Order: sequence, then structure tokens, then C-alpha cells
Amino acid sequence: MEKGDLQYDLTAEVRITRIRNLKKSKEIDRVVLETPLTIFLNDHELTTLICSPDKLDCLAIGFLGAEGLLEKAADIVKISIDEGKGLVYVNTVAKDGPVHKPIAKNVSASGGGKGSLVLNTLDSPRSKWINASLQAEPGEILKLVDAMQDKALLFKRTGGAHSAALADRNNILFYNEDIGRHNAIDKVVGQCILENINLEDKILLSSGRISAEIILKGARLGLPIIVSRSAPTSLAVELAGQTGITLIGFARGQCLNIYAHAFRII
Amino acid sequence: MEKGDLQYDLTAEVRITRIRNLKKSKEIDRVVLETPLTIFLNDHELTTLICSPDKLDCLAIGFLGAEGLLEKAADIVKISIDEGKGLVYVNTVAKDGPVHKPIAKNVSASGGGKGSLVLNTLDSPRSKWINASLQAEPGEILKLVDAMQDKALLFKRTGGAHSAALADRNNILFYNEDIGRHNAIDKVVGQCILENINLEDKILLSSGRISAEIILKGARLGLPIIVSRSAPTSLAVELAGQTGITLIGFARGQCLNIYAHAFRII
Repeated sequence: MEKGDLQYDLTAEVRITRIRNLKKSKEIDRVVLETPLTIFLNDHELTTLICSPDKLDCLAIGFLGAEGLLEKAADIVKISIDEGKGLVYVNTVAKDGPVHKPIAKNVSASGGGKGSLVLNTLDSPRSKWINASLQAEPGEILKLVDAMQDKALLFKRTGGAHSAALADRNNILFYNEDIGRHNAIDKVVGQCILENINLEDKILLSSGRISAEIILKGARLGLPIIVSRSAPTSLAVELAGQTGITLIGFARGQCLNIYAHAFRII
Repeated sequence: MEKGDLQYDLTAEVRITRIRNLKKSKEIDRVVLETPLTIFLNDHELTTLICSPDKLDCLAIGFLGAEGLLEKAADIVKISIDEGKGLVYVNTVAKDGPVHKPIAKNVSASGGGKGSLVLNTLDSPRSKWINASLQAEPGEILKLVDAMQDKALLFKRTGGAHSAALADRNNILFYNEDIGRHNAIDKVVGQCILENINLEDKILLSSGRISAEIILKGARLGLPIIVSRSAPTSLAVELAGQTGITLIGFARGQCLNIYAHAFRII
């Protein structure tokens, strides 16, 4: 990683005292950058995300898409970003439509939180049933996970980032790292929305734990297969079962666990 | 881990399809439980946390303490919990005091989110300066981290939990695992508040990444040393510098990095 590289630019240099085998030394280290981004939707302040300062437009659009506040690029009238102040303004056509849908309960997520979220959906799930016909082989899934890991330079450098990728059966289409699990996912989703890419025949890959919120996002977006290198939670497994999403965890090396709807893995 | 063990009770059994070296088998697996907990403060609904269903009183009190909404056990008039519905009601004496302080911006944290949080504090930090005289040796810190890891049975079983512990120089006093980094910390903090234990001469240990929010919590609570097995973010390093907290990351094996206020490590 060198100056000018994206991953380098998402880090900051800090002076540290390193203790190794009880010996102290003064060293220069790099830590992952963390910045607030406040999203305004149709001139109303919606939420503030804490994120890696990269692809802020994708993050804002992906967040709004995953929250059900917009659906497609054509819904967007204008995006403007003030990077210095960490502000993004999104204006949409649907002023009386989904935009005015009240943001759900003030939910504090377990480990990848969205301040305004989905837990009302837990009470009365209205997500559509995923009946996409996409299937994939285990070997294809494992290759995609390996490919995502190879790209995880920010994590390798700082130990403080999550990866997410959107793929078809053969290739990673979009990839992001962010200090937040959710942000990394929202950025790939946002890029798809901006580029009018259909999510219904795609595979979402994440380095982080899959909690209920991520399944609900996936269900809202129509994603048929969600894959993680790490663990799912009980509620994620339950909701994947209820929404028709194929949920795969611990996809590493030559192994993976399928927690719901194994029929898509052939 | 066996039935009746706490860690066992924080998991759920699921039927999975495991693929190992391209061979499919049907197996029983355990995943970490994830449940919502809605906190009411003086009869107002405050927030919903997604958590592991354990020590809900400590979680609620720790959350309120870390948010600056109560300070000590004597502030609490009543706690009642409806475990089945995931509700906790806290009544405090200070109805006109900190309790009515408006919850801050609707912030979505990067990876351990609090829905209602601290980011106004980023704009105008009012946390007290930590001038506690506590010091510790690197070997003591590393022993504490090892001891915390030894206790991490829920993580070892499910791969889906974070640990937090509160310690003095020699011993772990309180320990928790939770699906959320923040929850695990809030639970140890809550237990200290309930038991009137002074935090100003204690060490907070976490298995997870240290983000700005955790430093702000620590500053509000007066914690002088915060230690993580993993990475801090840039903003965490900056805020630790500004609040007087000794921040240690990557404490593993025989090594640790001190990111701020190294004078406490002797």
C-alpha cells in the first residue's frame, strides 16, 4: 500500500509506542480513518453514518435503498456531497412516496448498527419472498470469497475494516472495504442502484457477521444468496428461512455452512 | 459447552447443510442468539438494542450510564424487565436532570452501532479529562487479555460474539460476551454502576475494534485505560489523545500498541 492508493488514503498515520517482548519502541503506524457522514433526504436530516471516507455517494444511495427510501437511479433527482463537512444531500422524485415513510424505531444494532432501522420489520415482515432462480456451485462461492479476501488490503494494513462484494457466479462486480460491515454492503448496493444493475441474480459477499438487519436489507433488495466468511445469528437464520434467501456462513477454504434454502447451492 | 451453561443458553440449534471438500452433509449447528431489547426510561421509549439475551438489567443500566443518562445506582428508582417481550423499564430520580437531556443525533455507527448517540459530542466534546493515576505493566495487560480470551466460550462455539471485561491490574472483575461490541461493554459498565464500583481505577478490555464512540463512553465514565485485542480507528486515537485515555490496541501474545497516553504503561 502506497501513497495515492485508495487503501492508503483511507488510513491515517499515528505515532505509537509499541511494546514487543517487553521492549518499548516509538514507531509510526497506520490506523483506519473514521469519519461521520450525515445524509439529508429531500432537505431533511435523516441520519449520520460513521464510515470510511470513500464512495460517499454509493454509501448514501445504498443506505437509502436498503432502507426502502428509494429503489432505482431514476428516483434520484440530485446528489450533492460536501466531503469536507461530511454531508450528502439526496433529492428524490418520490416526495410523497417512500421518502416520507417514517424512519423506523430508533434501533441500536448489535454490531453494525443502523440508527434508524428495520426492527419494525421484525414485528411485521413485509419483505418480498425471494424466488430468484439463481443457483451456484460451492466451488464458485468459495472462489468468490477467496477473491474478496485477496482484495482486502485495508484490512490487511489496519485490521480495522470489513469487506463486501457483489458478484455473479463467476466474478466479483463491485467490492468495498469500510470500517462498518453495513457500510461496506451499502456501498456495493448503492453502486448497483446508481448503475441500474439488477440485484436479483447476484450474490452478496461479506467478511462480517450476518445479523437480522442484513437479511432484511437483502430481502428488501431482492438478493437471493448472501454469503459470509463468518457467523450468522439466530435471527438472521430465521429471517433467511422466512424470506427465501439462501444464507451461507463460514465460507472459507474448502468448507461452507448453508443455513437456509440450500436448494440454490448445487 | 453443555445445556444449562450460560453460553449454551445464548445459542440456538439450527439444522444446516455443511459442505466440506465438496461433500454435502446435513448437520446440527449452534448459532448465537440475537434478540431485541427496548429500553424505556421514565416511561418514555428510548431505543431498541439488538443483543444477546443475558444480563438485560446490566445492559440497560450500562447503556444509560454510557449515554450520560444516569450516573450511579442511587439514581435508579426501579428496574423492571419483561424478558419474554424484550422490554426493560428504568425509572430514575433525576426526572428533570440528565434524563430529559435530548438523545443526540440519529447516528448509525460503523460497527457496533448505537442508534442514539454521541456524535454531537464529536462536535463539542464536553467529556471530562481523565487524570486518573492508575498505571499498569505491559505484562499485566497481556495477562488480562489472555484471561478474557480464555473466557470467550460463546465466541469459540459460534464465532459470533464479542467479549468485554473490566479489570484491575491483576484480575478480571466482570466479564461479558454479547453479539454486540458495545453491548458487551455496556453490560460490564452497567454491573459496575449497579454495584457502585468506581471505574476510575479500572481497565476496560474489549475483543473488538475501538471506535470513537467507545472512547467517548470511556471518557464519560472516567475509564483511564482501554485495551483491545484488535484495531482502533483514527478518530478513536484522536479522541483518546483529547480526553486523556490510555488507548491500547492489538494486545496479543507478547505485543501491544499504545496509541495515546503511554505514561500509564510502565
